[in-house]
Amino acid sequence: MITNVPRVVIVGGGFGGIAVAKALRNTPAVVTLIDRNNHHVFQPLLYQVATSVLSPAQIGSPIRGILRNQQNTTVILGDVNGVDQEQKCVVVNKDDRHEDRVPYDYLILATGVRHSYFGHDGFARFAPGLKTLADAVAIRNKILQAFERAESENDPKLIPELMTFVLVGAGPTGVEMASAIATLVRSTLRSEFRHIDPMSARIVLVDIAGRVLGTFSERLSDKARQRLERLGIEVRLGQGVDYIDEDGVIIGNERIASKTVIWTAGVTSSPAGKWLNVVTDRAGRVRVENNLAVPGRSEIFVIGDTASLDQDGKPLPGVAQVATQQGRYVGRLIHRRLVGKSAPQPFRYFDKGNMAVVGKGFAILESGKLQLSGFLAWLVWAGVHLEFLAQRSLRVSVFVQWVWTYLTGARGARLIVKHHVPPLTEHEPRVQSESVAASAGQLNLTK
Amino acid sequence: MITNVPRVVIVGGGFGGIAVAKALRNTPAVVTLIDRNNHHVFQPLLYQVATSVLSPAQIGSPIRGILRNQQNTTVILGDVNGVDQEQKCVVVNKDDRHEDRVPYDYLILATGVRHSYFGHDGFARFAPGLKTLADAVAIRNKILQAFERAESENDPKLIPELMTFVLVGAGPTGVEMASAIATLVRSTLRSEFRHIDPMSARIVLVDIAGRVLGTFSERLSDKARQRLERLGIEVRLGQGVDYIDEDGVIIGNERIASKTVIWTAGVTSSPAGKWLNVVTDRAGRVRVENNLAVPGRSEIFVIGDTASLDQDGKPLPGVAQVATQQGRYVGRLIHRRLVGKSAPQPFRYFDKGNMAVVGKGFAILESGKLQLSGFLAWLVWAGVHLEFLAQRSLRVSVFVQWVWTYLTGARGARLIVKHHVPPLTEHEPRVQSESVAASAGQLNLTK
Repeated sequence: MITNVPRVVIVGGGFGGIAVAKALRNTPAVVTLIDRNNHHVFQPLLYQVATSVLSPAQIGSPIRGILRNQQNTTVILGDVNGVDQEQKCVVVNKDDRHEDRVPYDYLILATGVRHSYFGHDGFARFAPGLKTLADAVAIRNKILQAFERAESENDPKLIPELMTFVLVGAGPTGVEMASAIATLVRSTLRSEFRHIDPMSARIVLVDIAGRVLGTFSERLSDKARQRLERLGIEVRLGQGVDYIDEDGVIIGNERIASKTVIWTAGVTSSPAGKWLNVVTDRAGRVRVENNLAVPGRSEIFVIGDTASLDQDGKPLPGVAQVATQQGRYVGRLIHRRLVGKSAPQPFRYFDKGNMAVVGKGFAILESGKLQLSGFLAWLVWAGVHLEFLAQRSLRVSVFVQWVWTYLTGARGARLIVKHHVPPLTEHEPRVQSESVAASAGQLNLTK
Repeated sequence: MITNVPRVVIVGGGFGGIAVAKALRNTPAVVTLIDRNNHHVFQPLLYQVATSVLSPAQIGSPIRGILRNQQNTTVILGDVNGVDQEQKCVVVNKDDRHEDRVPYDYLILATGVRHSYFGHDGFARFAPGLKTLADAVAIRNKILQAFERAESENDPKLIPELMTFVLVGAGPTGVEMASAIATLVRSTLRSEFRHIDPMSARIVLVDIAGRVLGTFSERLSDKARQRLERLGIEVRLGQGVDYIDEDGVIIGNERIASKTVIWTAGVTSSPAGKWLNVVTDRAGRVRVENNLAVPGRSEIFVIGDTASLDQDGKPLPGVAQVATQQGRYVGRLIHRRLVGKSAPQPFRYFDKGNMAVVGKGFAILESGKLQLSGFLAWLVWAGVHLEFLAQRSLRVSVFVQWVWTYLTGARGARLIVKHHVPPLTEHEPRVQSESVAASAGQLNLTK
């Protein structure tokens, strides 16, 4: 190794981490990006994998592929377990074989969030969350399996609970999942069963908050709720889920029998705060300076969902845009420092707007004073999401798939695959975090 | 249920089972197709999923989707555990919840093959085979993981064994896998690593037989071997693998250190013979009459890889074509019987020809007296395989993917996904059979 060249270590290959690496492309530094997965996930479309529209490979891009032309960048597949701030190195478990120490001069933690069950970790078994491709495939299996079970169930009394889907949390993921399931039963599944009518599926979207998609204006939020109800979805607001088990959920005094409960509510930050031994906010996020450095540590930066930063008196939301802009900012900051230029202005998030899909051909969009809902907003949504897919080949593939699904109602990936037990990393079988930005609103949803 | 209408039960949604169901479309019968998976797999392209070219959803089609317009056909997701010939019903374990009995008037067993380790079942752990989508994803993870491990390995002595890939069995699957791995390192992976050179990967193809692709003519078989060697693959013929463990294989007195051994050798038939309590051949296949009925049981048929039938003194090969033609034949036979027509002529397999791919843009093809090798054969191969994909949408998707991969070298699905432990059916964690035809030649390869 060249020893005089500064070493930049990035932990996490989500929107934030990738943005830092790209910004350092022409910087005189040796860059190492570490992620526990070999792929970057385009998180905003994860719900489409969970509902059989897209394949995992259509929203997952190998990190090596994204950074292949950056000769100064090495990608390592490994689990980061800690940071040794005195020795200035990151402790990595590579592939579960041995612990390794990767030294840094600059460190960027972009480790994202994982699901939070607010202390009820036992719920995880019955109500999986959606953060990784593995999560999405598991939820896809669960949803499709429910219809299969219902079709072959001899006892008609058991069919309703098999055909009931409960989504806990009405942020973007909950709303998008609920409407995608509604679309699935109305189009693709409609004519495929002989004993059940998929159209009779009951879809329940629950939230303790008073409205869906709380980060949007009340008007748009209301439009979204109306649309959800028109799709036949039961929207239950101001109601918390008190208990979840294998037979369904309990809301107040009422039990909703359901074999398919999906957790679309809270998230909590990755353990980056613990690694650094610094104070975090309630959601576990690391408080950062306005240049995204950790207070008192000018060489350590925390970005994306792992960071807590206020702007104009309000905390920045946990969305891809924030992570990307912060990643670019930190990359530029380090570049300037290394080439001897002055420090940039404090970080400022430029909010381009916020969007959410509510079923086929309907979205809501808010950008500055602009508020839009309906088909036009959906077209903008589709265009923006295609634009931001990391690989050009995926844009073509996803576009063709969307047009096909839109026109024919056929889903691309309606597979129930009983995957083998993974041969590696089995210490975190259920709740897997990933270095990826959360959808907007989820952080606001915690009770 | 209508009781007077004859009930036809098909076990297996592979090429054979689907062909039976389709042939019964306009037959006055209630048809039930049972499979343990919700999807039909286009087995001849399974190796492309294992080598990251295609996504599982590009070769897997939901059986319900294929048969959606056949109102007389019900699809059940379940594991068949036996046949009660006296009561005329099939014993099905639906979704691991309860055993169920599905009555039949006509029964077709099209349950395919599973890997056979010739009594060395302990090899399974170290040398996975390729029969299902889950197998393919597991092998894909294993191959990609090997390069990741090598890249981050600090001990240079351990790198060669991480970069050595051994394929046990030089039938179509072994040859296609070996050449696909060779293509993978030469194109996609080539510029993505910083510490290792993927081009230095060692690929070993071993077979006890004297030549590769034994079902082809000697001339074509030789062409294929030459091509494999030009791709840098070590072809070791006339050599049996005596032992496999986590560190590699032993061939005679030699140990080849390898962390990635893949079993592309023997297959054995599903337990259909046991269910029927009839005599089977050495590979576990049920001997059938020339109308594909089980001797003495005019209402039970066995087709595809599960059946053993000679034609012109030679056993029919375990290929998709045979299964499909047999399926169509049995469907027609039952239809004729039900509408009161005379029995058809004995089954006769019409061999359209045989093909195998050896790397990018090269295939061998044998059809009657025609023998072809090279790019033209590869074009024919590509055309035929696209033509036979079950769903039209998949044809487009696979075609676009192939063109893209051919032109850019980029692979579509280079993901390492650590899937969650499947929540269901855990009693057969490793060797999963599937109702799908085997590749040609594999049955001939057993020692």
